[in-house]
Amino acid sequence: MTTIRNKVAVVGAGMIKFGELYDKSFEDMMSEAYMSCLKSVDKGIDPRKEIQAAWYGTIYGPRTGSALAEPLGLLGIPVTRIENACATGSDTFRNACFAVAAGVYDVALAVGCEKMNDNPGGLIEVAKQRPQLFWQYAITMPSAFGLYASRHMHEFGTKREHFAKIAVKNHHHGTLNPYSHFKFEVTVEQVLKAPLVAWPFGLLDCCPVTDGAAALIICRTDSAKKYTDSPVYVQGSGFGTNPANINMRESFTTMAPTVEASQQAYKMAGLGPEDINFAEVHDCFTGTELIAYEDLGFCKKGEGGKFIDEGNPYIGGSKPINPSGGLKSHGHPVGATGAAQLVELFLQLRNEAGSRQVQGAEIGLQHNIGGSGPQVSCVHILTNKLL
Amino acid sequence: MTTIRNKVAVVGAGMIKFGELYDKSFEDMMSEAYMSCLKSVDKGIDPRKEIQAAWYGTIYGPRTGSALAEPLGLLGIPVTRIENACATGSDTFRNACFAVAAGVYDVALAVGCEKMNDNPGGLIEVAKQRPQLFWQYAITMPSAFGLYASRHMHEFGTKREHFAKIAVKNHHHGTLNPYSHFKFEVTVEQVLKAPLVAWPFGLLDCCPVTDGAAALIICRTDSAKKYTDSPVYVQGSGFGTNPANINMRESFTTMAPTVEASQQAYKMAGLGPEDINFAEVHDCFTGTELIAYEDLGFCKKGEGGKFIDEGNPYIGGSKPINPSGGLKSHGHPVGATGAAQLVELFLQLRNEAGSRQVQGAEIGLQHNIGGSGPQVSCVHILTNKLL
Repeated sequence: MTTIRNKVAVVGAGMIKFGELYDKSFEDMMSEAYMSCLKSVDKGIDPRKEIQAAWYGTIYGPRTGSALAEPLGLLGIPVTRIENACATGSDTFRNACFAVAAGVYDVALAVGCEKMNDNPGGLIEVAKQRPQLFWQYAITMPSAFGLYASRHMHEFGTKREHFAKIAVKNHHHGTLNPYSHFKFEVTVEQVLKAPLVAWPFGLLDCCPVTDGAAALIICRTDSAKKYTDSPVYVQGSGFGTNPANINMRESFTTMAPTVEASQQAYKMAGLGPEDINFAEVHDCFTGTELIAYEDLGFCKKGEGGKFIDEGNPYIGGSKPINPSGGLKSHGHPVGATGAAQLVELFLQLRNEAGSRQVQGAEIGLQHNIGGSGPQVSCVHILTNKLL
Repeated sequence: MTTIRNKVAVVGAGMIKFGELYDKSFEDMMSEAYMSCLKSVDKGIDPRKEIQAAWYGTIYGPRTGSALAEPLGLLGIPVTRIENACATGSDTFRNACFAVAAGVYDVALAVGCEKMNDNPGGLIEVAKQRPQLFWQYAITMPSAFGLYASRHMHEFGTKREHFAKIAVKNHHHGTLNPYSHFKFEVTVEQVLKAPLVAWPFGLLDCCPVTDGAAALIICRTDSAKKYTDSPVYVQGSGFGTNPANINMRESFTTMAPTVEASQQAYKMAGLGPEDINFAEVHDCFTGTELIAYEDLGFCKKGEGGKFIDEGNPYIGGSKPINPSGGLKSHGHPVGATGAAQLVELFLQLRNEAGSRQVQGAEIGLQHNIGGSGPQVSCVHILTNKLL
C-alpha cells in the first residue's frame, strides 16, 4: 500500500447554516453550499471549465449523479454518488481524493447534502431493509450506542457525568459557530435530568435531526497555488468495517472500525495521535465521543472520562475535540456530516474559524462513523503544510 | 487530465447465472459471484490477506459497506458503496480502478449485486423520490426510452424491424451464454407482434427484470503477473451526465452522456471506435442499443438501422455487440449489470467465452447507462495487451 500523502490539496470549502430547513429544497441547500465553496477559492475558479468530476454523497436525497450536476450547472462531467450510512460524506471525499491522486482529474468537487426533516421515516426505511440488522431485536440507534456506553461504565467506572460534560462542551463550542443547528449552552445538571432516551443517554446526550450541506474542491497539490496561497493537504485516509450483526462484535468498549480507520490514516500520513492538534469526532451520542478519544489514541483505553475531566478536549485545552460543536450541536445531516467536518478542518487549518479558532492548528483529524454501533468508520488527517 | 491507461489490471472475474432467483438470498448471490471470481484467479489469491479494499454496488440491496464485508469474510477492510442508477456496477468498478491507479491499494475487489424480483416496488420507490423526475408526467422507463426510439424513426426512417432484429440477435447470443436469464430464440415476427409496452417497444423489445451478481478483482499492472499470466487491462474510463428533467434535453436521437463518456474513454485509451473489436452495450430496450451504435461511433448518426441490417453486430460480424446476450437476454440486475458486462469483457479478452467467443477479441468496450433516458453513462475500454 502506498499513499496519497502530499498529493491532494483542498483549495475551497463551504457549508450552509445547519438546522431544520423546511424553507429550503434539497437543491437550494446543495447549491448554497456549493456557492459558498466556490467563493472560498481565494484566487477564483471557473467551475464549468475547471471542475472535471464530482462525487456526491446523500442517503435520503435523489440517488443519481445527475441530481448534483443539474442544479449546480455542471452537466456533462462524471458524478459518482456514494452512500455509506452516516460516513457517506467522508467516503465521498475519500473517493474524490483517490481519483485526483491517480491523476485522472486535476480538480474535483465533493458534496454532501441531507434533508432529514422532510424524511421522518428515513431511518426506519433503512432499518427495515435487511433482516440481519439488529433492529429485529427492537434496538434503535440510541440503544445500540448505549450498549457501548453502558459497557464502558461497567468496565471502567465511567459515569453519566462524564458523558454530560461532553454535551456541555459541544453545546458551548456550538454557540461560537455561526453554522450550528443548536446555539444554546447546557449544564451537567440539565443533561443528567433530561428525559431518558436509552440508558445511559438522556435527550441531551443525543445529536439532533439536522438538514445541512457542505462542499469541498480538491486538486493535485502541484496546482494548488493556482487557486489559493493557503491550501490544506490530505495526508491520511482510512476506512474500517464491522459486522452489521451486533452479536458478532468482540467488544463493546471499543469501536473496531474506528481503530482500523485511524491506524490506516496515521500510517499513511506518517503521523500519530500525539501529532494531532485538534479533531472533529463523530459524537452522535456523547458516549460515542468518549470512546473515540480512546480508539483514536488521544488517551488510553478506559481513560476517556479522565480525558474530559482534565479539560483536554475543550477549545483552549491540550487536544480540542469538536470545536465546531460536533454532531451534538453543529448537527448531523447524515450524508453531509463527514463533508462538514472536513470543511471545519479546512477553516481551522487556515485560521478562519473565528471565535472557535483552535490556536496553532496545523494538523487536524476528522472521524466519521456509520451504521449500527458502528458498521463503518472513516478517518482523514489534514494539514496546512506539506509533510 | 492524465490517465489510468496501462496502470490497472483485472486478474479475476466471475458472475452467477442470472435469472429469477427466489431461492437465493442477496448474500448467497454476492458470495457465489465472489467465489467464482476468486476461483478465476489462475495462480491463486489469499483474499483475507491480499484484498485490501472493496467497492460494492447495489440499488435495492443493503446500503452500507459492511453488508459486503460481512458475508464475504472481509471485515475490517474499507468498503465503499456506490449507487448511480443502472450504471451502478460500472461506477463501482471505475472508483476501484482510481484507488488502485492512485497506489492506495495494491489489490481491490469490485462487486455488483441486485435482487430485483424481491423488490417489485423498487423502481417505483426511486421514481417517487424527486418531483422533478419525469415520472410526474407518468412517463415510465419504456416510454422515456421510447421517445428516443420514435424520434429516431421520425428523423432517420428507422423501422420497428430494425429494433426487432436487435432483439433477435441478442436472444440468439443469449442462448450461447450459460449465465443468461433468457435462453430462447425469437423471430422478427414474434417481436413485432408482441404486446405493445410503450411505442415503439413491444414486450420483446424490453429487457427482463433479473436477479444477478458479478465480481472483479483488480490490481496494479506491475503485480498482475503474480495472479495470472492472462491479465486484462483497463485502458479507458469515461462518465457523462444529463439533466434528469427530460424537458431540458437538446436531442432525442442521441444520448449525450454516452457520447461524453465514450469520448473520455477513447481519449484516455488513445483509441477510437475503429479499434474496438466487440462491445457490451446497454440494451435496456432494443432502440437504446441502436442509438448506442451511433453514439459510440461504430457507425454514423442515423445509420444504426443499416448497421444491424448489414449484420455487423452479430458474433461473426465486423463488430459483435452484446455477445453475452446483453441486458435483453443475459439480463439486467440493475446494480450488477455494469459489473457483469465487465466480466464478459474479461472472458472474451481471455478467449474463455466458449461458444459465444468473439474471434480475435483484443480490445473490448463496455457501455452502461442509468436513469431516465439516460441521466448518466459510463464507458470502459479493456484490452488483453498493454498499449
